[in-house]
Amino acid sequence: MQQKVISMTRPITEEAITDLYCGTFPKTLVIADLGCSSGPNTLFAVSEIIKVVEKLCGKLGRQSPEYQVFLNDLPGNDFNTIFRSLPGFQERMKKQAEAVTGPCFFNGVPGSFHGRLFPSNSLHFVHSYSLQWLSQVPEGLEDNKGNIYMASGSPPSVLKAYYLQFQKDFSLFLNCRFNELVVGGRMVLTFLGRRSPDPSSKECCYIWELLAMVLNEMVLEGIIEEEKFDSFNIPQYTPSPFEVQSEIEKEGSL
Amino acid sequence: MQQKVISMTRPITEEAITDLYCGTFPKTLVIADLGCSSGPNTLFAVSEIIKVVEKLCGKLGRQSPEYQVFLNDLPGNDFNTIFRSLPGFQERMKKQAEAVTGPCFFNGVPGSFHGRLFPSNSLHFVHSYSLQWLSQVPEGLEDNKGNIYMASGSPPSVLKAYYLQFQKDFSLFLNCRFNELVVGGRMVLTFLGRRSPDPSSKECCYIWELLAMVLNEMVLEGIIEEEKFDSFNIPQYTPSPFEVQSEIEKEGSL
Repeated sequence: MQQKVISMTRPITEEAITDLYCGTFPKTLVIADLGCSSGPNTLFAVSEIIKVVEKLCGKLGRQSPEYQVFLNDLPGNDFNTIFRSLPGFQERMKKQAEAVTGPCFFNGVPGSFHGRLFPSNSLHFVHSYSLQWLSQVPEGLEDNKGNIYMASGSPPSVLKAYYLQFQKDFSLFLNCRFNELVVGGRMVLTFLGRRSPDPSSKECCYIWELLAMVLNEMVLEGIIEEEKFDSFNIPQYTPSPFEVQSEIEKEGSL
Repeated sequence: MQQKVISMTRPITEEAITDLYCGTFPKTLVIADLGCSSGPNTLFAVSEIIKVVEKLCGKLGRQSPEYQVFLNDLPGNDFNTIFRSLPGFQERMKKQAEAVTGPCFFNGVPGSFHGRLFPSNSLHFVHSYSLQWLSQVPEGLEDNKGNIYMASGSPPSVLKAYYLQFQKDFSLFLNCRFNELVVGGRMVLTFLGRRSPDPSSKECCYIWELLAMVLNEMVLEGIIEEEKFDSFNIPQYTPSPFEVQSEIEKEGSL
């Protein structure tokens, strides 16, 4: 799924990294992947970005830059597994036809991307495909009983609470990244989003409604405590293009 | 033990970081701890360094820099535990009398410090107290049977093999760091070392001779296979001050 999404956004990423690299030709190209997780896709996005730059260098007859790669996720993420997979990953990169010739330095960055993670003016390129995750479950979901996310049956206050949390989180995200990016830096942010202006539309909520039905059944059967079920909500928001755009426009610094 | 060593070297560290900071006043101070391990001492050295800079800023009436801290060890190190301890560590730092006011960004760096770990010209301050560790067991220790390290009974070829490995490793270390440090950058390197010019002197080897005696006994009792014991050697070298100095002088770039 993630590989498919990254492949779909490849032309956008390619254009962004090309613009950035040819605009500045940094000796060290600093790339951050925010919300990298740990699994088969952790290094996929970064390796795609590096391949684009290597190809550019080949075409332009330039020496490859050094790459400094920051892999970020929450402190509970399994960084040990990522780190132990790096030597094998670097071997495979070398063996590939379009070999990376610039040295590549990997770092783990534990922390929430809903806050500062890097020094000011230190990043060239930021990538993330995790921005549907909120920093926390919104406050004020007491009236969302029987649901675990916004649902067609949720009261307007619940929809509003989710939207407010998204606005707060995303504007903080943009503000932090604005401070961390160098002048001329670029971001490619991928959201799990929705087409409909209605935040409780089936396209984003149906999967959670199904899960809520199953959990309701389990409460009835006594497998899950009702109280636990009532207090459980998914910290996610899948914005519409308009909602994303309007936060970006508010963040005048970008 | 490590805390004691770090406390002993504190005046040297304090002088080095003061010289560096007052010579350049970087907006972001980039600190690397090489061979940080994972345990109660992992963050001790770094926190001491930061405290010195914070005190300086207070005295000089300057705004604190941003700190970017790189914690390095081999990929097999338990970075997950370090990362999960960071929020608590940052809380404690804040509560201390001489509070850190500059933001502090932590990163994990998996890899051997006997090779490049960072982009060129990217570090201000390097600290390590792990330099007695070699990159590997030296080659040519076939005649070291019955021992697991240099011992009073080891043939000269074994002593030479260990010294050659130390020379190779330490000169590579210096060369890598020279590339990674900014102009005016500083290093404080702590070795487990020896006073005697004799590399097989009791002060460094006795502890391993004792362990070898125990292991020999276990081989006789059939608890350990003889072959395994014969092929086991400690990848460590505790140099004399002269040996350290002469490698530094050879590395003319410093």
